[in-house]
Amino acid sequence: MTVTLLTDYGHDDEFVGVCHGVIRTIVPDAPIVDVTHGIPRHSIRHGALVLRNALPYLPPGVHMAVVDPQVGTERRAVAVRCGDGRLLVGPDNGLLSLAWERAGGVVEAVDVSRSPHRLEPVSATFHGRDVFAPVAAHLSAGAALADAGDPLDPADLVELELPVASVGADEALAHVLLVDRFGNAALNLDHAALLATGGTIGSRVLVESGGRSRKATVVQTFADVAPGELLLYEDAWGWLALAINRGDAAAELGLEPDREVRIAASR
Amino acid sequence: MTVTLLTDYGHDDEFVGVCHGVIRTIVPDAPIVDVTHGIPRHSIRHGALVLRNALPYLPPGVHMAVVDPQVGTERRAVAVRCGDGRLLVGPDNGLLSLAWERAGGVVEAVDVSRSPHRLEPVSATFHGRDVFAPVAAHLSAGAALADAGDPLDPADLVELELPVASVGADEALAHVLLVDRFGNAALNLDHAALLATGGTIGSRVLVESGGRSRKATVVQTFADVAPGELLLYEDAWGWLALAINRGDAAAELGLEPDREVRIAASR
Amino acid sequence: MTVTLLTDYGHDDEFVGVCHGVIRTIVPDAPIVDVTHGIPRHSIRHGALVLRNALPYLPPGVHMAVVDPQVGTERRAVAVRCGDGRLLVGPDNGLLSLAWERAGGVVEAVDVSRSPHRLEPVSATFHGRDVFAPVAAHLSAGAALADAGDPLDPADLVELELPVASVGADEALAHVLLVDRFGNAALNLDHAALLATGGTIGSRVLVESGGRSRKATVVQTFADVAPGELLLYEDAWGWLALAINRGDAAAELGLEPDREVRIAASR
Repeated sequence: MTVTLLTDYGHDDEFVGVCHGVIRTIVPDAPIVDVTHGIPRHSIRHGALVLRNALPYLPPGVHMAVVDPQVGTERRAVAVRCGDGRLLVGPDNGLLSLAWERAGGVVEAVDVSRSPHRLEPVSATFHGRDVFAPVAAHLSAGAALADAGDPLDPADLVELELPVASVGADEALAHVLLVDRFGNAALNLDHAALLATGGTIGSRVLVESGGRSRKATVVQTFADVAPGELLLYEDAWGWLALAINRGDAAAELGLEPDREVRIAASR
Repeated sequence: MTVTLLTDYGHDDEFVGVCHGVIRTIVPDAPIVDVTHGIPRHSIRHGALVLRNALPYLPPGVHMAVVDPQVGTERRAVAVRCGDGRLLVGPDNGLLSLAWERAGGVVEAVDVSRSPHRLEPVSATFHGRDVFAPVAAHLSAGAALADAGDPLDPADLVELELPVASVGADEALAHVLLVDRFGNAALNLDHAALLATGGTIGSRVLVESGGRSRKATVVQTFADVAPGELLLYEDAWGWLALAINRGDAAAELGLEPDREVRIAASR
Repeated sequence: MTVTLLTDYGHDDEFVGVCHGVIRTIVPDAPIVDVTHGIPRHSIRHGALVLRNALPYLPPGVHMAVVDPQVGTERRAVAVRCGDGRLLVGPDNGLLSLAWERAGGVVEAVDVSRSPHRLEPVSATFHGRDVFAPVAAHLSAGAALADAGDPLDPADLVELELPVASVGADEALAHVLLVDRFGNAALNLDHAALLATGGTIGSRVLVESGGRSRKATVVQTFADVAPGELLLYEDAWGWLALAINRGDAAAELGLEPDREVRIAASR
């Protein structure tokens, strides 16, 4: 069964490679997919959103995720089975919660902090290597979830809360969910919400954030506006997003996660 | 059959991982080689040159490449079979053209914009996921090229033009083709061109670019000059290149793609 | 047999991808583990330490490593068999030496500079592609080590020297071994050495380096101190390391490889 990995380890150090080594030692031939290791350090919500977005495009399997500022403390390490059969492995800090919502909820959960699959001695700072990777590998090899740790009530798992946008008659008050490396900023709005404010393809809207105000064109893709122009489009995950064609919208508008953004019809 | 990937997606986001996920969902066991995802954003020519250079070292298979500033517009998405049997998949913007020149030309081409293999709904901005990856995966699994899209006359494909150097009796007027992350700058000159200007291993040449002028030693490798010294050498792809031992030639000489560089015998 | 790779090539260019291509051309199905390609350029010792640390977590196989400032000169290229059966391939500049110490020493060595497995013509600057990758691939496919090059006396191999800490009654004079991308600095001290100076979990120590002095708390993990506080902990490889919770200890204390650090009991 495929193992997928998502972390904030980056590629400068050997953390990802060592996790691969641990997995390959246990299951030499399992396909491994690195979803990304570029989650901003300690950004649980960014990781949770990316995992949720990517999930439908990943083969069913064991999905390990590690963004873990509380590593080495009493925070739980968990493995869960979702309604659709996918298995998720990671710290119990909300990182996995948007993914399991999308995958049919949690039908079985275990605490793997003292998993029989763990590598001893477990270090205080690298549970990716010592706990999560060996647990994920054994699950991918067919080990039973119930044998990977101690049973846990799914209701006790940590859930993540996302900010909620409010959509009025001619404006929407939204928030930045995440910013990608090109400076494109996804908002907690979908296309239906935009239509409610009168925004249709080709129309102009007013974008206000942090005291700055700028007009954007509602379009389908970057090349529909001139280089340097602001656009509002439905991104590849179904969110409305702000971007600048061949530019960096986040830098120019000061957009960062949780920042409020007002989108209003432009008259 | 192996699938190779080359893009400008970088590793900070999940774009590469999601393409892997799409491929692995269709062909769980195909070998995947990531040629690089570090092509400078939107730099079609850089991508085309790297793909061309790498190709002889890649196992024959399906070679997917995405550097696609016009994604979501009417630019074509294509898959082609080369004279040597390799299959190339990507946007029809010249990105693939240096590779197919090297691989025996195009013997069959299809427009895959509305490929039956595509993932619907196709997003306006992420054709790597929705078009190119599933087409590449199905081809690697043995699907017929003719079934991947609509037939296309190879003569209609977009070709890339490279700048042409002029080599005189005692000087060469060349251009920077690309700069790697160490600041080494490849020129559109090969070793034979240098010999024509009298440059032999151990000789000194005058390098002029952007109003700056500096002497370089013609050598085989970095360690043949002292740290900090400029060298002219045949790089691993057969081009003449400028470098500074343990330094950054591009930064020191202001070299960037297309910049003219005059190489003259130094008396 | 698994092939693992460790280099200073980075991910911006196609160097790593081309090595994968060469390996996959020879052994299409061998598992490949990228330990890391983020070793600081030309930092042989950093690479040697990371390879040594990672080795116990990698499946037994062929371990190729390239940090090679002398590429193209007369430095030897080698392949060795360790006492525990692992095979190491790389330049003979000390890069492999900490790994073979850990793997039971060298029991057989060959000079692969003119290996029958090499790709000709061998470039002067990219032996990863032309020498090390094809040698590693053939070894992983089962080729005999003796057939990969010319026999070599293991006693002639280059060994790396590490700085040695001195541990006194109430202080230790140590050195920075390496700094990771989070700014955590590993010292050439283990936990036993710390205990010798009276440092126990929860105690405070004085850390002096480069004229700067600061107190640190001896703890098990980052979250045991407040954000911004300096901690001394046993890192995941068994070394004592300095870190700042949610901060960058190397930047704040000016720590870099070989820098002396005095750790003293704080009264």
